[in-house]
Amino acid sequence: MKPIKLASLPTIKRLPSYLHVVEAAAKEGRAFISGTVIAEELELEPIQVRKDLAITGIIGKPRIGFPVGELIEAINAFLHWNQVHNAIIVGAGHLGSALMGYAEFPRHGLHIIAAFDANPEKIGRTINDVPIYGIDELTNQIRGTVVDLAVLTVPSAYAQETTDLLVGCGIKAIWNFTNVKIKAPEDVVVQKEDLSSGYAVLSVKMRVLSDPHFAALQHHTATTGTR
Amino acid sequence: MKPIKLASLPTIKRLPSYLHVVEAAAKEGRAFISGTVIAEELELEPIQVRKDLAITGIIGKPRIGFPVGELIEAINAFLHWNQVHNAIIVGAGHLGSALMGYAEFPRHGLHIIAAFDANPEKIGRTINDVPIYGIDELTNQIRGTVVDLAVLTVPSAYAQETTDLLVGCGIKAIWNFTNVKIKAPEDVVVQKEDLSSGYAVLSVKMRVLSDPHFAALQHHTATTGTR
Repeated sequence: MKPIKLASLPTIKRLPSYLHVVEAAAKEGRAFISGTVIAEELELEPIQVRKDLAITGIIGKPRIGFPVGELIEAINAFLHWNQVHNAIIVGAGHLGSALMGYAEFPRHGLHIIAAFDANPEKIGRTINDVPIYGIDELTNQIRGTVVDLAVLTVPSAYAQETTDLLVGCGIKAIWNFTNVKIKAPEDVVVQKEDLSSGYAVLSVKMRVLSDPHFAALQHHTATTGTR
Repeated sequence: MKPIKLASLPTIKRLPSYLHVVEAAAKEGRAFISGTVIAEELELEPIQVRKDLAITGIIGKPRIGFPVGELIEAINAFLHWNQVHNAIIVGAGHLGSALMGYAEFPRHGLHIIAAFDANPEKIGRTINDVPIYGIDELTNQIRGTVVDLAVLTVPSAYAQETTDLLVGCGIKAIWNFTNVKIKAPEDVVVQKEDLSSGYAVLSVKMRVLSDPHFAALQHHTATTGTR
């Protein structure tokens, strides 16, 4: 893929957690939520919250806060989560199976319509109502169906050849859960998921806990203001 | 947990991908790698790479770049990934099982020594050589063993009660894969993993691909310079 240089990548990554907090406020029947309350809930600075949410076009009102209903709509519209995205899962192992049952996805418009695997024991079964087909049936199965993205959960050794197969079938977006940096044409969007990132943050937090003077706590604060 | 205000959170999240690139260079027998090469590989700006890596104490040399061996050591030392962390997995469903087989973890010092589940059909079995015990055996099984962290992969409905159980057993770090914001005492580190973040980025990239003029591409660039 030709790299898409997304401005505001950290903001985009935080949008789902904003959505989560604001949806909880909506459930409680609240019409407005203040930036300060959102900030406390997510352990961010209020100024960061206001800057982040501005990307959706919603500006909070002084002393009142953000309109809950409008903000939910605006975040969903920004992310296109108010539209249905049909997805297939390629690789129905443990991770693929876990994703088939991930309750958040349907709420964000992500509908997993089929899974594909090479293991004959899995083919023909369903996991969380998702039917599993043979990987060699992929081209035929998705013909005539709009598939917006493919979730790649095959063993890493098969990552590239499976990518080539998906690209050949006209798939334009791949969510890559393997640890291989896959190659795809410029008009195909690739997003790599890396669990090691979260583990790195946890590792540093554990280090801070055991040694409160560990430099990471203060380092760079003055220059970047991130946390 | 009392929020740990980590400076340089985005930097810390990027460290694993730097490690990945630099380890690949080491495998190719290279002694140095330039910041520009790292930047291209990871689709970052070279200035960002230099700023990020400075947190490890390693500074690149003009025209030569970063010393590969030293940089690998420095990143691992910064993250404490040069030490063994014993972990247990609580919830041996699909996600827990996937994590038991995640090849990156042992390479980063994360050793999963046991898993716990409430399902009698799973108890007594092993998954990827990890033994599965009953959740009611937790206290007894980990007594006398140093457990550095617990990976929480139970159904969300059981997230808080399982957290309370883990805290009661003296666990000081919890990697939370449920979609519940769990409560834990101040001296317990909690890191919440949210797959929706990656999906949000993918969603915006898909939107950009279908509409190259979509504002996210340029928005905020001048002020934040992030991507």
